[in-house]
This record gives sequence, C-alpha cells and structure tokens, in this order.
Amino acid sequence: MAISAATVKKLRERTGLGMMDCKKALEESGGDVARAEELLRKQGLKAAELRTARSTREGRIGQYIHMNGRIGVLVELDCETDFVARNAEFERLLKDLCMQVAATRPLYVAPENVPAELVTREKEIAAAQLRDKPANMIEKICEGKLKDFYKQVCLLEQPFIKDGSKTVRELVNGVNAVLAENIVIKRFVRFEVGEEA
Amino acid sequence: MAISAATVKKLRERTGLGMMDCKKALEESGGDVARAEELLRKQGLKAAELRTARSTREGRIGQYIHMNGRIGVLVELDCETDFVARNAEFERLLKDLCMQVAATRPLYVAPENVPAELVTREKEIAAAQLRDKPANMIEKICEGKLKDFYKQVCLLEQPFIKDGSKTVRELVNGVNAVLAENIVIKRFVRFEVGEEA
Repeated sequence: MAISAATVKKLRERTGLGMMDCKKALEESGGDVARAEELLRKQGLKAAELRTARSTREGRIGQYIHMNGRIGVLVELDCETDFVARNAEFERLLKDLCMQVAATRPLYVAPENVPAELVTREKEIAAAQLRDKPANMIEKICEGKLKDFYKQVCLLEQPFIKDGSKTVRELVNGVNAVLAENIVIKRFVRFEVGEEA
Repeated sequence: MAISAATVKKLRERTGLGMMDCKKALEESGGDVARAEELLRKQGLKAAELRTARSTREGRIGQYIHMNGRIGVLVELDCETDFVARNAEFERLLKDLCMQVAATRPLYVAPENVPAELVTREKEIAAAQLRDKPANMIEKICEGKLKDFYKQVCLLEQPFIKDGSKTVRELVNGVNAVLAENIVIKRFVRFEVGEEA
C-alpha cells in the first residue's frame, strides 16, 4: 500500500528512526502509526545490544534545581545524532534522570565506575559482619550485599523514582530501543547547600 | 527625625543588613534611602575583611543551560543566612556567575585551588621560553605570566564578562559589601557535550 510522506515523518519523529525503517514498518502495519511504532520498538530492543558499541558524540545537558535552590543537578545524556538529541522522548528521559539524581543522590553512573578500593571495603565490612557463618554462605550473602550497595550508589542500578518496577538502566534501555541509538549517561553532578564539597 | 518602619524595611531589602544598622544610616541620611544605602556600602566595604572569617552554611545553587543544551553550568554561592540567600542582589550575582562560567570555562575558583604541580609546570614553561634573559628579569616576567595563567583558569581572577573593568573577585566583593555577609563561591561545574569527561 502507499504510505504518505507525512505519515512516515510522524513515525520518524516519534521513534527517531531512519526513513526506510519507518516506511517498512508502516507497510507492515497497514499505515497504522501506533502499531508501526510497536513493531519498531520490538526490533529496536533486539538491536540495542549492537548499538552500545557505536560512538556517542552528540547529546544534551539537563538541569534540575530543587528545594528552593538548595539542591542542583546537571546530567549529560549522550547519543549518536543531534536528531535524536532533539527528540521529545530523549528530552523526557533527561528530565527524569535529573529528578532521579536530585532525589536519590547517587555517586556513580555504573558499578564499573565505583573505585576498586571502595568495593573491597564494602566486601570486607560484609565479611566481618558474617564471620560466624560457613564460607560458602558468606560468599553468597556478600554478593547480595554488594548488589544492594550498587543499588544505593549507582544511578543505573537504582529503582526509577517514578516507577519502582524498573531500574534506571531499564528506563534508559527502553528509550534506547525506541530511538534506535546508543544512549549513554555520560556523567552527572549534584550540589547541595551545606554538604562538604 | 522619625524614620518609618516601611523605609527601614525598604533599605533592609536593598542591603540585606540588620534593622539597627539601617535605622541609624537613615537617620544620618535624613531619611534618604539611596544616600543611606551609600553610607552602608562604605561601611560594608570596611567590614568585608572581618566577615570573610565567618562561616557560610547557607546559600543557593544556580544553573545556566547554554547553546541549546550543549553547555550546562552549576554554581554554589554560599552566605551566612538564608535571609541574604533570598536577596535579589545575591540572586543576580549567582546568575552572573553562572553565565561567566558558561562563557569563559574557568577550571578553579581561586589561585589557591590550582594544584601545585600545575603551577610548577606553568613556571617551568615560562622559564624555558625566557632562558636567554637575565635572571632578575626572568623572575619578574614569570610572575606576570603566572598572573595571566590565573586570569585564564581561576573564576575569581577573570574579567567580568558584563563589565571588563572589574574582575569577578571585585564583583563578588561589591555584593559582599552591600549585603554585609561573607559571600563565597564554594564550587562550580561546567559540562559541554563532546568534551572529554
């Protein structure tokens, strides 16, 4: 069937995807934009893993000022093209991330950003608390405690404040899949008046 | 002469100073608010040095997003009381500082925050460029070059972007004097899309 240029444009705006991908999905869905978006979303989820190797040189800085100016947050969210950086879904994600950082004060983006000596210290504390238990149990419980620690200090591991059923990582991956670009939280900072710098 | 409570309030709002100081200045100025503010400003400038030892536990975080979201800035400006943090002059200073950081990308607040090894390196580079000159000249020129270096990388030493006749330090000192509180740039951060983190 013939798909109008306006319909393709609409789907491109909603998904941030290429012309041909959108046209093909619309042909499959019989011109139904919502259904085509769903098809692309499913394909996107499969392709997301390949994309994470692609370079992200575009992006946006988001900000959030909270508590009458006593808390301030900056987040840099990067992507591959300025086209995606201007997408409403990308902007919404950036805003959500800023609010998340303001509310939950994470210290690192991901577990791999936590300094090794901090991880060692956490493991030692956990082991010390458990020294009366059998060795195989200690290892398992320590693993669990480390996971809890990452959930506290790593933005990507935290439950999303607006929907606790998913982590921030899952939130980012969802947008990543829809927009079909590698989307990366590059860095963030949180200032609060009265805290030690 | 009798000074109305409304006039005292007006002067307090303009200066952030105490009730008695404002009343006394108004009595001296014969009720002229502008002249009373000038009197207080002069006294404030004298008192500013004493104030810098007082503790700053209040303040505000300001933000500025520039270049369509490709540059983001946070600045923490601290003071002694929340009363001053809510003053319009304080807010204006915070806004100006955010714009300054966005435009001129300083790296440190003050010369004392520049790591010692960086200062040593700058001195060595300058000395290497001048090695044919007599020793007493080298020292003098090195001093000048170090000053230029601080002017580039230290926020307080930079010329103010809106009025190049004063430095940012002079700008802050001016507001400090008017508000009669110790006002301190505690920290700032500047993110730009595409730069190395």
